[in-house]
Amino acid sequence: MDNFSYYTPTLYEFGRGTEEKVGMLTFLTGASKVMLVYGSKYAKNNGLVDRIANSLLTIGIDYVELGGVRPNPTDELVYEGIRLGRAKKIDGLLAIGGGSVIDTAKAIAAGIPYKGDFWDFFTGKSQVSEALPVGVVLTIPGSGSEGSGNCVITKADTAVKLSLRTDSILRPRFAILNPEMTFTLSAYQTAVGIVDMMTHILERYFTTTPRVEVTDRLAEGLLMALIAEAPRALTDPTDYQARANIEWAGTLAHNGLVGCGRREDWVSHFMEHEISAMYPDIAHGAGLAVVVPAWMAYMAHHKPSKVAQLGRRIFGIDARDDRTAAIETVASLRAFFGAVLRMPLSFKALGVDDPDIDAMVERLHANKGEVIGGYYKLKADDTRQIYELMLDPAQVAARQAGRKSEPEPAPDREAEPEPEAEAAMA
Amino acid sequence: MDNFSYYTPTLYEFGRGTEEKVGMLTFLTGASKVMLVYGSKYAKNNGLVDRIANSLLTIGIDYVELGGVRPNPTDELVYEGIRLGRAKKIDGLLAIGGGSVIDTAKAIAAGIPYKGDFWDFFTGKSQVSEALPVGVVLTIPGSGSEGSGNCVITKADTAVKLSLRTDSILRPRFAILNPEMTFTLSAYQTAVGIVDMMTHILERYFTTTPRVEVTDRLAEGLLMALIAEAPRALTDPTDYQARANIEWAGTLAHNGLVGCGRREDWVSHFMEHEISAMYPDIAHGAGLAVVVPAWMAYMAHHKPSKVAQLGRRIFGIDARDDRTAAIETVASLRAFFGAVLRMPLSFKALGVDDPDIDAMVERLHANKGEVIGGYYKLKADDTRQIYELMLDPAQVAARQAGRKSEPEPAPDREAEPEPEAEAAMA
Repeated sequence: MDNFSYYTPTLYEFGRGTEEKVGMLTFLTGASKVMLVYGSKYAKNNGLVDRIANSLLTIGIDYVELGGVRPNPTDELVYEGIRLGRAKKIDGLLAIGGGSVIDTAKAIAAGIPYKGDFWDFFTGKSQVSEALPVGVVLTIPGSGSEGSGNCVITKADTAVKLSLRTDSILRPRFAILNPEMTFTLSAYQTAVGIVDMMTHILERYFTTTPRVEVTDRLAEGLLMALIAEAPRALTDPTDYQARANIEWAGTLAHNGLVGCGRREDWVSHFMEHEISAMYPDIAHGAGLAVVVPAWMAYMAHHKPSKVAQLGRRIFGIDARDDRTAAIETVASLRAFFGAVLRMPLSFKALGVDDPDIDAMVERLHANKGEVIGGYYKLKADDTRQIYELMLDPAQVAARQAGRKSEPEPAPDREAEPEPEAEAAMA
Repeated sequence: MDNFSYYTPTLYEFGRGTEEKVGMLTFLTGASKVMLVYGSKYAKNNGLVDRIANSLLTIGIDYVELGGVRPNPTDELVYEGIRLGRAKKIDGLLAIGGGSVIDTAKAIAAGIPYKGDFWDFFTGKSQVSEALPVGVVLTIPGSGSEGSGNCVITKADTAVKLSLRTDSILRPRFAILNPEMTFTLSAYQTAVGIVDMMTHILERYFTTTPRVEVTDRLAEGLLMALIAEAPRALTDPTDYQARANIEWAGTLAHNGLVGCGRREDWVSHFMEHEISAMYPDIAHGAGLAVVVPAWMAYMAHHKPSKVAQLGRRIFGIDARDDRTAAIETVASLRAFFGAVLRMPLSFKALGVDDPDIDAMVERLHANKGEVIGGYYKLKADDTRQIYELMLDPAQVAARQAGRKSEPEPAPDREAEPEPEAEAAMA
């Protein structure tokens, strides 16, 4: 266990009807005029934004609106929000939505009091020392942004997606979590949220810090709860208890709890960011469902110990040697993502027939450094192999045929498809 | 899952050397003159109090001292602290010690700004609406008071021990947790702390709230981590990693995390409070090591379901029917408390040869109501049987012999000892 500071001053109001407290909670942040930030559909259409606006007015809090946040939110709306917020002299923000909405609100909250360009915070040129208070009414669980001090924004002109991590200054002051608001999420939206939550846990789980039994057990517990509750929410989208357990697990997955005292490893997120930067229609969670098992399969062959521990503890795998246990763990995780969550498991299933892996690898290391990863150090040759593990068998075959054709014209381009994508690793 | 509010604005500074931050952290609470509260031995003798006092002076924070807090802290020192604090015009408190010290500091923090008698908060006559900031340097883990809004004080003249629970106003502003400070704890002190932690988890675990998978899994995870790390700390008291995992588990056991969204059941604590009120030399954790398995054994016969779940998940018990699994769970827990932690498992082992069970039952229900308990409702007849389960076989035999003698003079008082204390339940 490493030394750590842990400070989570977010008030969570969890359960049915908790959105009725939004006026009082906003008042308690000291704000008198807030910006309501929301997406393009759900929150406005179903009247939630108007209900919240009314409850603010009732308590004497004025507001302005900034709608239209889209998935993978960009700097453009942040700049617009900063201009609007300064012009209207707001002193707080209220995010009504999921991660994209919350992250946009956080970036605006940090940008308004800052004299320079808010993007400085993301490039590391400057640090956030001041921010307006942000409150959250969560409608899409998964990002964990409602309880974290982090935020991810994409630079629209270059498609560079960067994360900003703060200890606590960007943590929301309060987060209202009513699981009923998630009843209308589609099976797909529910599933991508669950993959995102599981990845937030796994990227903290895989660490080189020894003797982290407490946080290992907490991480495994959250994963087991998600694995148990996911099929219930998918079978009955209005199963309140399943929705509630999933939503709370999603907050705890990312508020720092399972990262206390350990080095973390965000390689799967970084690798996925390059995919969704290049193919912006891919949902973050869907991309992760492809990346995480591929990364883990590579680990099963290069550093299987913690993969094996994970599988033994959460899937009940009893193989005695670590490599076998790790391979079975990857198979179990893939089965859960594929058969239960109905998530894509390959580039092809993501709709990317011919992924530009060279470009992904190049951008990944240009953005994150020559050597990346905590649990296991990865260079370009490693990350290339991991991306190749995301190809489905037909894609592997097509590439092998293509590669053969370069040095010598191939007499037969229809190579036998390999039975498993992992064969690409050999 | 029930609705809940969860707000934990305590900054945890965890690890080696973190006590060096005490000056800055105290400064950040806004305090300019604090009361240093500590016990009778450890913190003063080893120079910790003086080191902290010096680091406060360096940063320009003045202080007064209040030493001599004892286990099962009483109202007398709280009154003294309130008088001293008002006279010296302190504006903050720093507790250097374990639960007794922290609870004394919290009661003083609430008492100083209150016009009435601070005991009003404990009797429910008044609620805490204001308190001075409290910081903690933890030297004895177990109570969890460093992260909780609760505090337990005993009225010296009546031996009534009452708990005060607040949402967040009495949560420490910061808690400094350096596992090295726990190296000098004896095996006994270490063990009673671990039993206290486990009980904080178990009394939240046993609930009637359905579908609490997330918090169940977190609770089980913390228990498994404690069970794994305890023997390591007992074998090598300077095993930093074992001490660190135990200390952090102890904080999470009681800061509300595993109670979110569920009704809790504090019957074991209530039953133990009556034992230690009557026999004040008994350490709280040692009393709990006797009470908890007895309560759980009673549940194994009356409501085994959750006991069985616990044992299946943390001890790997595979008995198919709940009652058998529950009985095996109790046996496993007793084995851990007895063989690993070397804790007492009966009144006799606690040094109480002839416990006044009638008086305990009467006081328990007088203090807590005719029907107590959440997971399973207990009346006086039930709690009497649970107390009787804490008798060791020789004590059971002696009592049976004694009882027989009342209606008719017994020819032979040496009844055969029952093989198991549980036989008293039959």
